[in-house]
Amino acid sequence: MSNTTELVVKMNLDSWNSHLKRTDDIINSLTDEQLAGQVSPGRNRGTYLLGHLTAVNDRLLPLMGFGEQVHPELNDTYLANPDDTSKTSHSIAELRSHWKEVNDRLEQHINSLSTDEWLQRHTSVSEEDFAKEPHRNRLNVLISRTGHMAGHLGQLLFLKR
Amino acid sequence: MSNTTELVVKMNLDSWNSHLKRTDDIINSLTDEQLAGQVSPGRNRGTYLLGHLTAVNDRLLPLMGFGEQVHPELNDTYLANPDDTSKTSHSIAELRSHWKEVNDRLEQHINSLSTDEWLQRHTSVSEEDFAKEPHRNRLNVLISRTGHMAGHLGQLLFLKR
Repeated sequence: MSNTTELVVKMNLDSWNSHLKRTDDIINSLTDEQLAGQVSPGRNRGTYLLGHLTAVNDRLLPLMGFGEQVHPELNDTYLANPDDTSKTSHSIAELRSHWKEVNDRLEQHINSLSTDEWLQRHTSVSEEDFAKEPHRNRLNVLISRTGHMAGHLGQLLFLKR
Repeated sequence: MSNTTELVVKMNLDSWNSHLKRTDDIINSLTDEQLAGQVSPGRNRGTYLLGHLTAVNDRLLPLMGFGEQVHPELNDTYLANPDDTSKTSHSIAELRSHWKEVNDRLEQHINSLSTDEWLQRHTSVSEEDFAKEPHRNRLNVLISRTGHMAGHLGQLLFLKR
């Protein structure tokens, strides 16, 4: 693996880490009351986005081959379904704690992977397809999730008054 | 430049192009009336974000060493200052046209650069500093602007009713 590849992988990891930190900072700076509000009238509640981002990050564990999901019970409410304001599925304290737990787990793996390992296939692509489509690697998943998180970060900022 | 570096650069270009396309699609799908509204109560108008993203992309031209800004007259209203709802500085037709013009210009350069050129320094870093900090290259600027655009894209979506 060339030094240049290592540099570019590092740039992408920095982008992920910086978006994760900014998202974490805004979540930690919001009161429970702010987080329970909708980011814009008729749009997702902050709590939904918190559960959603937690579930997305949690699913990176199996997708990257790091292990099992820690909180698969979030998938139904925060991934498979849109925000339903008629119910509160998890307490805010619980959501905050899961967010931290999942990110801590993920961080350990993300920051210990070699450049070579970043360019290996993720678990939802077969070896055969990967041979033809080498961009379907772990790093590309992280790039995609960085953009996804950035979009929701832009929305969470509206909860700050 | 190794094949692997080329692959990773390509992954980042794909991410930029896909966010740009999604942003362009949402802008084109919004009526002028929708675009003139605030993305959330008390937040930026769609027109401000359109001018803002145009100015940010326009500034990539000199920053990447591709040439002069096409519409430097946007900088004051859409970069240096926050949205001022008491005035309308540019017509929506003008903003839409500038957005297209800037992106067309940028696209020509972006899609013709070699992998090697992506890893060269951007124009706001000196040769001396770049020797010590090789991550201050064109590609890193593009990665950063992709995240910035993704955040505003997440906000523009709220204008869709």
